[in-house]
Amino acid sequence: MAAPAVVLLSGGLDSATTLALALEGGFAGHALTVRYGQRHAVEVERAARIASALGAASHRIIDLDPRSLAGSALTDAGAEVPKHRDEAAIGAGIPATYVPARNTLLLTLALAWAEGLGSSDLFIGVNAVDYSGYPDCRPEFLRAFEALAACATRAGVEGARFRVHAPLLRSTKGEIVREAVRLGVALELTLSCYDPAPDGRPCGACDACVLRARGFRDAGISDPALDRR
Amino acid sequence: MAAPAVVLLSGGLDSATTLALALEGGFAGHALTVRYGQRHAVEVERAARIASALGAASHRIIDLDPRSLAGSALTDAGAEVPKHRDEAAIGAGIPATYVPARNTLLLTLALAWAEGLGSSDLFIGVNAVDYSGYPDCRPEFLRAFEALAACATRAGVEGARFRVHAPLLRSTKGEIVREAVRLGVALELTLSCYDPAPDGRPCGACDACVLRARGFRDAGISDPALDRR
Repeated sequence: MAAPAVVLLSGGLDSATTLALALEGGFAGHALTVRYGQRHAVEVERAARIASALGAASHRIIDLDPRSLAGSALTDAGAEVPKHRDEAAIGAGIPATYVPARNTLLLTLALAWAEGLGSSDLFIGVNAVDYSGYPDCRPEFLRAFEALAACATRAGVEGARFRVHAPLLRSTKGEIVREAVRLGVALELTLSCYDPAPDGRPCGACDACVLRARGFRDAGISDPALDRR
Repeated sequence: MAAPAVVLLSGGLDSATTLALALEGGFAGHALTVRYGQRHAVEVERAARIASALGAASHRIIDLDPRSLAGSALTDAGAEVPKHRDEAAIGAGIPATYVPARNTLLLTLALAWAEGLGSSDLFIGVNAVDYSGYPDCRPEFLRAFEALAACATRAGVEGARFRVHAPLLRSTKGEIVREAVRLGVALELTLSCYDPAPDGRPCGACDACVLRARGFRDAGISDPALDRR
């Protein structure tokens, strides 16, 4: 029987590709989508369709109280999502879209579920190339989380060795697009935008849209999510 | 101006005493109550009254999706809370009331708020004497969380040194009762029971009730929460 793994699935390109990689690697991938704030509601529906299309073992959606993550342009309804339209400006310092402790919280929710499932493998689609400004997208963060998981849980104390897999950590966006194509990810379902329209149409201007566009350009592939407009 | 700290406040004896200690220590204590599962609803109201009575700088209540913490007698509506009425049986191995990743999740929510407040001090009322069976009540867990916080956050990367204060870590329950009395904690408001009646009356039989009764007995004080019955 395939070993279970918990895969964080936002509904974006990176997390969908990560789920596909976990499944390709032989894991029974249980997809976990955390619904927070208002902006990404359409992502949850996309995540469910992606999990189903890729053959996830199960899909769990957890609602996160918006008060849990305050103080970022990504979760504050009043804050403006930065629109650069300028690739050079991306990645200088810690972006306004940084959310305090977000990846720690996401991984902890994955850990809690994993322990219940008897799994010690967590997958997260973080990337240290394009998101180099985020402290919780760095390898040292992932290693610190593994060390915490080892002593925070019953399973860890009893000998389980928790691993945080971040298979896209060092990939460029172009490489991720090519991986997604190779793995048969339904790219038209993935939604990377920080500020999509209610129907899921990407804004085309936020950091995530600019990076995604560059990835498709580098991969020499047209983005089917844009064709849906 | 007093430095801000985030204090996890369940509404129980230990967390109320921890908040009082944070305030006595000169911190502006911001109390954080996380509402999860169904069983502890009455605790939230008590927590609000305790925060107000002790003079907390603010009190935030976060709702946690019950799906976040599954697989424990403490959060599963169908599961039976163990009733020992036998002190010798408490503390042997990891108890059925262990909740996967609970304290990691609570501290992460505290960390997210702390970073927003510009605080690097977290307080938690964990105890390694009576709860020696819980992996996430041990000093090594607290140190691992500090190490994670240092590299998970913008503040940590920029030099903040996060500290997890657990002032009751090595106290007996009798010592905690005496501290609470010394600090003027409204003991009649504190609720330690895992399985209280809707009006907050403790069951008297769960591990927490048995430990609390022993603490009051050791301190030579009668429990005012029982007088309210």
